[in-house]
Amino acid sequence: MELQDYLKNVVQDIDLMIIRYFGHPYGPLQEASAHLLSAGGKRLRPAVCLLSADAVKEGSSFDVAPAALALELIHTFTLIHDDIMDHDAERRGVPTVHTLWDESTAILAGDVLYARAFEFLCRTPAPDNARVRAVTLLADTCNDICEGQYLDMSYEVRDDVTEVEYLDMVRKKTGALYAASAAIGAIMAGGKPMQVDALFQFGMSAGIAFQIQDDLIDLMAPSSVSGKDRASDIRQGKQTLVSIKAREAGIDLTPYRKTLSDPEMDALIARLETAGVIAEVREAAENILEHGRSVLTILPGSDERRLLFELGEYFVTRGS
Amino acid sequence: MELQDYLKNVVQDIDLMIIRYFGHPYGPLQEASAHLLSAGGKRLRPAVCLLSADAVKEGSSFDVAPAALALELIHTFTLIHDDIMDHDAERRGVPTVHTLWDESTAILAGDVLYARAFEFLCRTPAPDNARVRAVTLLADTCNDICEGQYLDMSYEVRDDVTEVEYLDMVRKKTGALYAASAAIGAIMAGGKPMQVDALFQFGMSAGIAFQIQDDLIDLMAPSSVSGKDRASDIRQGKQTLVSIKAREAGIDLTPYRKTLSDPEMDALIARLETAGVIAEVREAAENILEHGRSVLTILPGSDERRLLFELGEYFVTRGS
Repeated sequence: MELQDYLKNVVQDIDLMIIRYFGHPYGPLQEASAHLLSAGGKRLRPAVCLLSADAVKEGSSFDVAPAALALELIHTFTLIHDDIMDHDAERRGVPTVHTLWDESTAILAGDVLYARAFEFLCRTPAPDNARVRAVTLLADTCNDICEGQYLDMSYEVRDDVTEVEYLDMVRKKTGALYAASAAIGAIMAGGKPMQVDALFQFGMSAGIAFQIQDDLIDLMAPSSVSGKDRASDIRQGKQTLVSIKAREAGIDLTPYRKTLSDPEMDALIARLETAGVIAEVREAAENILEHGRSVLTILPGSDERRLLFELGEYFVTRGS
Repeated sequence: MELQDYLKNVVQDIDLMIIRYFGHPYGPLQEASAHLLSAGGKRLRPAVCLLSADAVKEGSSFDVAPAALALELIHTFTLIHDDIMDHDAERRGVPTVHTLWDESTAILAGDVLYARAFEFLCRTPAPDNARVRAVTLLADTCNDICEGQYLDMSYEVRDDVTEVEYLDMVRKKTGALYAASAAIGAIMAGGKPMQVDALFQFGMSAGIAFQIQDDLIDLMAPSSVSGKDRASDIRQGKQTLVSIKAREAGIDLTPYRKTLSDPEMDALIARLETAGVIAEVREAAENILEHGRSVLTILPGSDERRLLFELGEYFVTRGS
């Protein structure tokens, strides 16, 4: 099967579950909880979860779809809360929850999805010990995600963030949930501890690489691809691998903290390319991904292993 | 053992766990998460959890203390998020988290405790199936608490809330977590399904009665007892059983939506007492509690069952 077909199937399956369980909200709060969830999305964390389960299962296995949905619920809850903190008015082409309702409702809407994620983990028809391990890992992951978001916000008022600090933040903010997605898929499907560990490491690496590519997309891609204003990271003074490596190359991005015209933007990109910054950032993402893919070789050869490899490749090439 | 001695022991045990697990925060976010948790509190939900476990256990049993802590963590997370929504500046004699840090940190601090509650449930040394049932129940409870807080806020702009609507809100906002505290204690200790159900119903009734008494304390007690401004509910136009029964008795509380002098307050209370409103509210709380205590009779007679009875009594008499 082609990766794009697999991903399309996942989107269909997850969207159907979302319609079934969240499509008939019984009041304004449940409606607010369902709003962003129902606004589409690539459902990449569920895809990682389902592929990981299929990559380790032997013979008949358990249906891990409820666990895959749980990971999308956690992702969505963090987006709803992050949008409040970042004062973002739009996401996935629709107004954010706190814009359409209010901040109090958005806090509660996120809290509802948070709860329902743990509910769906427990609904997964897997052995009890697998479900307890999955809940423990997801709880630990949520703690990491909060830490990551906190670090990301605290970096905005600094201009001396190091690469190590940046990678620590990205590991928590984005890597942890991809790592948990892969590991929870494997745990629920009855994977052996070594397989669960390998998939956790793969998810972590792929997630970090995904975020670095996201930063590149923000800089390079037109708004129509990124879904955001072009170079919003640079305008807001966000610390990314691009800004860190630019600083190391002697390029001061501070004067660019304003709305840039397209020609100004093109000149900046040309300057970063000439200094080798873009190539270095790309290489960093590829190296991190490569580490994750190398540990995957302990899994038996299968279509699903190949698709995980290709999914990693997609993470660092999308939008370019 | 006397109830007050039992409650003192619980406070000591829970406070020690809080020092152990939250007393050495490794960064500002963890510090913000620990702030309200470390500011004291009566630890009544852990007490209900521990008493319920002891009331059903046979012979040697599991240590349910981590689960008891989990319930306090959920309670504290909801307080941190509620304080943001209600713009409250003080709680338990200390500044609220969003006042001392900021709203973003307070949202994340609540989210961290939310995650750690599920972590501590899974850390409880009980059989896996008990832990899965406890996680499922707690997730469902968190959904209820969010609904309850949403209803409470939405009632503030209405003056036609019925007793049925009020009780539905209180059931979700306060009753559900007491019900879960009792049921989770019983589940973790290996209680039989009938015992778990009875303790759930007792916790629910006791929690609703607790909230009704809380509303009475707000009206009747001096600030030194309630820890809040006297009659803040009436000033804010909150819908409580007092305001609903006052309306039924033909007393319009709208003119009292302002800061009242002590003589004005005393006159209002005298008016409500003469009309029988206070007595009706007290009777409602006692009837609800009595229903909960009647189902407890299916438990074997024990010191713990007696203490649960007395704890219920304390819920509807405290502060008066």
